[in-house]
Amino acid sequence: MLLAGVALAGRGVADDQSRRKETNMEKQSNGHETHAGQNGHRPQASAGLAALNPDTLPKNPAFSQGVMATGPASTIYVGGQNAVDASGNVVGKGDLKAQTERALDNLEAVLAAGGARLEHVVKLDIHLLAGQSVQKGFEAYQPRAAAFHGRPPAVTVTFVAALGRPDWLVEIDAIAVVPAIKS
Amino acid sequence: MLLAGVALAGRGVADDQSRRKETNMEKQSNGHETHAGQNGHRPQASAGLAALNPDTLPKNPAFSQGVMATGPASTIYVGGQNAVDASGNVVGKGDLKAQTERALDNLEAVLAAGGARLEHVVKLDIHLLAGQSVQKGFEAYQPRAAAFHGRPPAVTVTFVAALGRPDWLVEIDAIAVVPAIKS
Amino acid sequence: MLLAGVALAGRGVADDQSRRKETNMEKQSNGHETHAGQNGHRPQASAGLAALNPDTLPKNPAFSQGVMATGPASTIYVGGQNAVDASGNVVGKGDLKAQTERALDNLEAVLAAGGARLEHVVKLDIHLLAGQSVQKGFEAYQPRAAAFHGRPPAVTVTFVAALGRPDWLVEIDAIAVVPAIKS
Repeated sequence: MLLAGVALAGRGVADDQSRRKETNMEKQSNGHETHAGQNGHRPQASAGLAALNPDTLPKNPAFSQGVMATGPASTIYVGGQNAVDASGNVVGKGDLKAQTERALDNLEAVLAAGGARLEHVVKLDIHLLAGQSVQKGFEAYQPRAAAFHGRPPAVTVTFVAALGRPDWLVEIDAIAVVPAIKS
Repeated sequence: MLLAGVALAGRGVADDQSRRKETNMEKQSNGHETHAGQNGHRPQASAGLAALNPDTLPKNPAFSQGVMATGPASTIYVGGQNAVDASGNVVGKGDLKAQTERALDNLEAVLAAGGARLEHVVKLDIHLLAGQSVQKGFEAYQPRAAAFHGRPPAVTVTFVAALGRPDWLVEIDAIAVVPAIKS
Repeated sequence: MLLAGVALAGRGVADDQSRRKETNMEKQSNGHETHAGQNGHRPQASAGLAALNPDTLPKNPAFSQGVMATGPASTIYVGGQNAVDASGNVVGKGDLKAQTERALDNLEAVLAAGGARLEHVVKLDIHLLAGQSVQKGFEAYQPRAAAFHGRPPAVTVTFVAALGRPDWLVEIDAIAVVPAIKS
């Protein structure tokens, strides 16, 4: 994922010191389990969401390599969100940071309509217009990292040839999982 | 999502008048719940599929901003569908509308093999070849909107640099959820 | 999907002869059910994973047109995997086959951290840098096809304008489903 190359100040994840200890053991982090290692044993099927970050892959507080959802849950599929207002007008024309902020605001609004928050997001797909700077988008993303409580989503970033409107610089869709019994 | 900018005649969704009332209340629509508002309360975890359309985002009868699946269900993951026949030959060469129709036919065939229909689709990813007209694709999509019974899927549209074969103008994949107990 | 145009030697799927019989009946294959036909009847909701390959679509041992997951399960969302080592350094610079192999290794490592294997993958999204050869990537993918035990994932392949770093030629993300009771 793209952000592997982005320098992270680590702000917003101070409550997640345990993620930085690199061990082969399963760890507890804010009530979420983080699994590491490649020995292939099956983690206990406890309900909830667990980050999957094997030690052979880069670790980054901004995203997980994988997220596992176990047990009864509601799953929310969020369609591609852009920097638009309620009337469909573009917000932040020409400004990727502003557009990313608005797209994330809109994504949070969709989650809220289903009783979910950013912490429930398990997968983010970020589609940037070719030529845009991932660093600018990341400046909008990073301040929200604390919302993930040490279990950030799995993320895919691609640069596409075009988006639905010429003014759009970013489109973000997501899958969120809300465990039926909170872990 | 792209279609926010596409004029909709509203045909095929006449049975969904309630979606056009903009309120902050939860609504009933064809047995599907539609949640609005951003107050973050958790909707009742009744089994089934619910559209999520907060009032701060554009509303469009062709897609939902999000869809929430709750309760026991089968989930169908449909791989990228193109305009091919059973032998893999391209159908509708050079014609995006024809290719979109065939790709949707193929998608419906995959759903049918799992006992599902378009109304069970919760997420559509539409990959258009760069330079194609979204309007032409939408002409093929719109007549099927009635099949969604007022709960259209969440949709992401991107324009990509190329698809698997030079003749392909569109590739569509999907996730569908079939509640174990029909809502 | 792209691979429809790729010649397959069929190696690695010798244990799946039944998939090549084209009938309209449901078939048993290694304990996985494969549904065909378009009559829209609902398959029995037996727990596990079933390939969906209607007879009106091309068949290919490298992918399924769709995969249906039924019953209690853990779902793993794997973020975009690239050809990087544990320090984030690029592996296989300029070599798509080598990069695809490493990205798949990394994907398997994430799955293993959740107790899953390739056979649990239900959807693969393969993002190739524009201009790359799908055949080269497929040379890395094909030897692992046997791991799917005749139930390969649904696959989408697109060519994107760029990936997160200039050296990256491919990014692969996935969804895997691990049935709570092994089928």
